[in-house]
Amino acid sequence: MKNSMGQALTVTLFGESHGAMIGAVLDGLAPGIAVDEDRIAALLTLRRPAGRTGTARREADHFQIVSGVFEGKTTGTPLCILIPNEDAHSKDYAAVRRLARPGHADYTAYCKYHGFEDYRGGGHFSGRVTAALVAAGAIVLPALQSKGIYIGTHVRRCAGIEDRAFGDLPADVRALSEMPFAVLDTDAANRMREAIEDAAKDGDSVGGVLETAVIGMPAGVGEPWFDTVEGVLSHALFSIPAVKGVQFGAGFDLADARGSAFNDAFTMRCGEIVTRTNHGGGVNGGITNGMPILFRCMVKPTPSIYKQQDTVDFFAKENASLQIAGRHDPAILHRARIVADSVTALVLYDLLAMRIGTDWFMGEA
Amino acid sequence: MKNSMGQALTVTLFGESHGAMIGAVLDGLAPGIAVDEDRIAALLTLRRPAGRTGTARREADHFQIVSGVFEGKTTGTPLCILIPNEDAHSKDYAAVRRLARPGHADYTAYCKYHGFEDYRGGGHFSGRVTAALVAAGAIVLPALQSKGIYIGTHVRRCAGIEDRAFGDLPADVRALSEMPFAVLDTDAANRMREAIEDAAKDGDSVGGVLETAVIGMPAGVGEPWFDTVEGVLSHALFSIPAVKGVQFGAGFDLADARGSAFNDAFTMRCGEIVTRTNHGGGVNGGITNGMPILFRCMVKPTPSIYKQQDTVDFFAKENASLQIAGRHDPAILHRARIVADSVTALVLYDLLAMRIGTDWFMGEA
Amino acid sequence: MKNSMGQALTVTLFGESHGAMIGAVLDGLAPGIAVDEDRIAALLTLRRPAGRTGTARREADHFQIVSGVFEGKTTGTPLCILIPNEDAHSKDYAAVRRLARPGHADYTAYCKYHGFEDYRGGGHFSGRVTAALVAAGAIVLPALQSKGIYIGTHVRRCAGIEDRAFGDLPADVRALSEMPFAVLDTDAANRMREAIEDAAKDGDSVGGVLETAVIGMPAGVGEPWFDTVEGVLSHALFSIPAVKGVQFGAGFDLADARGSAFNDAFTMRCGEIVTRTNHGGGVNGGITNGMPILFRCMVKPTPSIYKQQDTVDFFAKENASLQIAGRHDPAILHRARIVADSVTALVLYDLLAMRIGTDWFMGEA
Amino acid sequence: MKNSMGQALTVTLFGESHGAMIGAVLDGLAPGIAVDEDRIAALLTLRRPAGRTGTARREADHFQIVSGVFEGKTTGTPLCILIPNEDAHSKDYAAVRRLARPGHADYTAYCKYHGFEDYRGGGHFSGRVTAALVAAGAIVLPALQSKGIYIGTHVRRCAGIEDRAFGDLPADVRALSEMPFAVLDTDAANRMREAIEDAAKDGDSVGGVLETAVIGMPAGVGEPWFDTVEGVLSHALFSIPAVKGVQFGAGFDLADARGSAFNDAFTMRCGEIVTRTNHGGGVNGGITNGMPILFRCMVKPTPSIYKQQDTVDFFAKENASLQIAGRHDPAILHRARIVADSVTALVLYDLLAMRIGTDWFMGEA
Repeated sequence: MKNSMGQALTVTLFGESHGAMIGAVLDGLAPGIAVDEDRIAALLTLRRPAGRTGTARREADHFQIVSGVFEGKTTGTPLCILIPNEDAHSKDYAAVRRLARPGHADYTAYCKYHGFEDYRGGGHFSGRVTAALVAAGAIVLPALQSKGIYIGTHVRRCAGIEDRAFGDLPADVRALSEMPFAVLDTDAANRMREAIEDAAKDGDSVGGVLETAVIGMPAGVGEPWFDTVEGVLSHALFSIPAVKGVQFGAGFDLADARGSAFNDAFTMRCGEIVTRTNHGGGVNGGITNGMPILFRCMVKPTPSIYKQQDTVDFFAKENASLQIAGRHDPAILHRARIVADSVTALVLYDLLAMRIGTDWFMGEA
Repeated sequence: MKNSMGQALTVTLFGESHGAMIGAVLDGLAPGIAVDEDRIAALLTLRRPAGRTGTARREADHFQIVSGVFEGKTTGTPLCILIPNEDAHSKDYAAVRRLARPGHADYTAYCKYHGFEDYRGGGHFSGRVTAALVAAGAIVLPALQSKGIYIGTHVRRCAGIEDRAFGDLPADVRALSEMPFAVLDTDAANRMREAIEDAAKDGDSVGGVLETAVIGMPAGVGEPWFDTVEGVLSHALFSIPAVKGVQFGAGFDLADARGSAFNDAFTMRCGEIVTRTNHGGGVNGGITNGMPILFRCMVKPTPSIYKQQDTVDFFAKENASLQIAGRHDPAILHRARIVADSVTALVLYDLLAMRIGTDWFMGEA
Repeated sequence: MKNSMGQALTVTLFGESHGAMIGAVLDGLAPGIAVDEDRIAALLTLRRPAGRTGTARREADHFQIVSGVFEGKTTGTPLCILIPNEDAHSKDYAAVRRLARPGHADYTAYCKYHGFEDYRGGGHFSGRVTAALVAAGAIVLPALQSKGIYIGTHVRRCAGIEDRAFGDLPADVRALSEMPFAVLDTDAANRMREAIEDAAKDGDSVGGVLETAVIGMPAGVGEPWFDTVEGVLSHALFSIPAVKGVQFGAGFDLADARGSAFNDAFTMRCGEIVTRTNHGGGVNGGITNGMPILFRCMVKPTPSIYKQQDTVDFFAKENASLQIAGRHDPAILHRARIVADSVTALVLYDLLAMRIGTDWFMGEA
Repeated sequence: MKNSMGQALTVTLFGESHGAMIGAVLDGLAPGIAVDEDRIAALLTLRRPAGRTGTARREADHFQIVSGVFEGKTTGTPLCILIPNEDAHSKDYAAVRRLARPGHADYTAYCKYHGFEDYRGGGHFSGRVTAALVAAGAIVLPALQSKGIYIGTHVRRCAGIEDRAFGDLPADVRALSEMPFAVLDTDAANRMREAIEDAAKDGDSVGGVLETAVIGMPAGVGEPWFDTVEGVLSHALFSIPAVKGVQFGAGFDLADARGSAFNDAFTMRCGEIVTRTNHGGGVNGGITNGMPILFRCMVKPTPSIYKQQDTVDFFAKENASLQIAGRHDPAILHRARIVADSVTALVLYDLLAMRIGTDWFMGEA
């Protein structure tokens, strides 16, 4: 389905970094969901680069919802949200059009689109397109919250510096929702910022690991084959630019463990069935078990660096050398985390609507 | 779409561990693909438990193709392959029907299917269903090979023992295709077997990491948003029972690296555009770049262990203790690797057919 | 998606007329639906040719449900139903393999499948495959009835003879469910049978019009664009072999009317909103309005006739003459009507499950 | 899939009659298709009401393509086309919000969207949304023509007046492409215009039948079950507001014929396999046979009439009387025909891209 995802709720993205607009269409929303434009703006701000850890490109992300909302609430018909591109310096890119930036999609886009791609600023592959994804997520996040489902992502690791593990999940998730730099431990946050600035000074970049927690998901959601919760979530998460790994629960960390150590023992707590540990990340056999859903995304270091790099001229098919100009982030994890939240929200909304029906999220008239 | 995957080629699985049959329907196959039943049987044998490292349950996996093949070749209409269940001891399971086996889907199946699920032997969640997936993969693997695309998976890590890294890929992939225990280094293989037997003696189990290489994929396949190669592959790979993490290229291993170390420099080799390293796993921006596709799956230790375990009775909603009987594998990685090959083959066939048209894989009349 | 239809409930068909088996997989069924094998057998009997108005090919349609049912009820996992082919005379067809039977799919199958198609008895295009569709419908029809939704189809017109219009719908629909020859007016039924026999004597065939009524559908189901009730139903109905037209409500009959005559005035009846007439067939703007859904399918005369016909040899690309042998129906409407019921049931089940959630049809534990 | 259609090419519509904008996203277009904005404008003009036979609402349909086009050609990434709403009189509608206009979707929208729908001017159900569909069609029509595939629709019947049948198809299709009032016979055209004006004088409306011809489609496109050419086309055609019937070839007109009269005899003509008649409408067994695809759509009379009508107040659940004000067409067939062309183009593009690959329509660099 290409640039769309979801069944009961389908999200379609469009737009290029230096085109007129980017945007998203959400089809299948329940009617009556209150749309809070301030909330959308706030989430878009969390995604935007800011301060010394971000690119110099600053866009206010003025958005417009042109359909699917009436008198402040969703109508249930497709909602289209548009974000104009305002601050694009296209000529930065024309000079290097035929040189494949390492780690970027220039060459693969050329292979796929045969030279017709809009190559400026990464075109449709640009991280800029995630603004539309965040806006889409901002529509459904409150609907999930109205059902007691909360999502929070922190930078678990960046440039070798580790944040503390999740502790009191409801408190941590709440705290993250307001943090511009989503690291739970203040000291770790400061050291990460320094490491990012150090990389920037070297004309280099860093990456790391995002960790997401979802609390409040009911048990029994997902499918045994193919549309497992892990499968559907990872499908979407790998669309976040630079994500190269996704693991649920303990994942690779406990690859060497024995079953007796890995298995999450069930037990009763306050009349509810829970597990003592959560190495499975809240999913058994592809289906939620009522525990928090926990997963991590590995985010590779930003491929745009200012160091001289070896590459090829793919028009001439010959070796070349590349010095990237323009404006680029030395790290994107702290911005990507709100994209992870949004993608997660869109996927979970869809899974719930498939199971419980499209009207489950409907607000009151 | 639940128990189906794929667009141009759709695979649908059905069956329960202790029902009459399991099977798969493949819809969208090109006409004229030669179907080699010996090949299917050979791949099913690789999936079957064998020797001291496998469960005592032995089934010959007699299969029957009941549609979509005529005079030894695919017709282009849906191919249904059936595998009868022959050796099922159903009464082993009835006694523990209300006790949630830790790490298994008993409780989540109950939440999803409200008690109507066939609970015997894991029912539709059973690893047994992967036999149908392997049979399906065995139909398309030769079609990919006829286009120069080869897939191989080895046990990269098991019980803390590491196999050597991939070296000469064409040779390694060829070697793996005939190994019953897919470990490239003989010494590592022996130590892994010992570790599995040790775990079995302790009534315990082990897991590890599978590593897959795909050679020969053309550049330009995949989509920038949502249907990225990583996203589509991981969606399917998480259906392999016990897989809890998927990473492409260097993945989590290079989470601490800087961009200058992670970026794969492009260079010319024999007139072809290649990358010097392959940290990206052959995919840039969701699209193949012509390099080998490399990924790893974390496989958790088999949840069925013979030790006493704490759990709950989910009918009574009270704590309970569980001692699993029956026949179970102390490790499944060495069997799951052929499932990983099959899933990969089905996904890549679909991506190629979407791009190049459904007849690309057609054999000669 | 080719040989599948439906979103919340997906039906996949497979099989060829002279292959080993035909069958269907239903994925997305609610758990707990009682499966009545006698009912399935009864519906299959209504589809089977019988007496002087049917072909000489008689198959008992022994079926086997091999997955997705446990202790007499659906489990919620994919249900696969198999129907072996028992009475196939393959050599009847080999002689005419290269001659395109007019009105049949021989030539188009050859164009699509490049000669790899199983040509015997129409292969995958055979009306025989509708037995699997009827079996699939027989699984969901009782689930719809448990919600008060009933479906009935009669032969509205055959060989120029008209049945009476629907009158008391609940009574008519109930009566149809037990009629082997589904014509409401006895005299019309007799004259239709005669006309069919007359055509048979002439080595010719007849067609006509089926009319279907659905009672009990709630208002508010369907989508405004693309997945209109009319669009989704017609998509499926055109799969019934020989259907070449579908119209809802008055359809083509009132093409010359003015709006003031066509519009269905709303009015209150017993506290319910109804329409006085039902020219719209129970659908406004693609969405059910709570009135009976009414539609008609034009079924062309059976293309298999015993008269000498002009055609081409598509191997040699030259003109040829064809005399069809084998066993064929002089009319199929009276058999197709149960296929129309089944297709309608599968589509409505899907629309309802998408709207209300997959568990709506769940039986009681 | 709700407001989307297509697999290889997916079209998503959004927008309400009196919202900010309507639009469409096309995902899956081949790269390199020349986008001719004058052509889009010309087709939009053919859809717009004009002269005495149209509504008084006149909008220039200024459109903007905001993504997916670079340097005048498609990039292969999603193309979003926006059409602002400029001339909406919203207060005309507020007064009658709770009264169900007969033949309209007011009541069914209320049932589906629970009162959250944008009711102004029919909201998302408005014929206005077809402007986006026509714009989408205008992108792919030239791509089809570059492959020799041409589509033309005429008003075959209106208010009981019949146009002449298609004759020399290439000439007729070419002629239709430039006609503002698409009737082949000038005398019939004049009488239809008179009949429409007569209806308008009476505050009433008329409907009729559209007939479409597609020439140049290759044989072998379509699927035997479910995704038949008839099924996929009808699915989309029923989205055209007011279409209540679709028939292929002779359809209902030959419901009384015998097989010997209905069957299209194959014969050789200039080395090509053709049929002597075309009662099957160019489709056998759901698959194109290389003959022109012929079908008709029944378009009911415009439900908006100025006569007093009985209806209900669906808030109060009581009988009411309604006098529609506002601006409305006494007939829409002559405008809908360009919508039929567009829908047909989008569907055929998709079927061809699925079969031959997404790049088949790619222009030259």
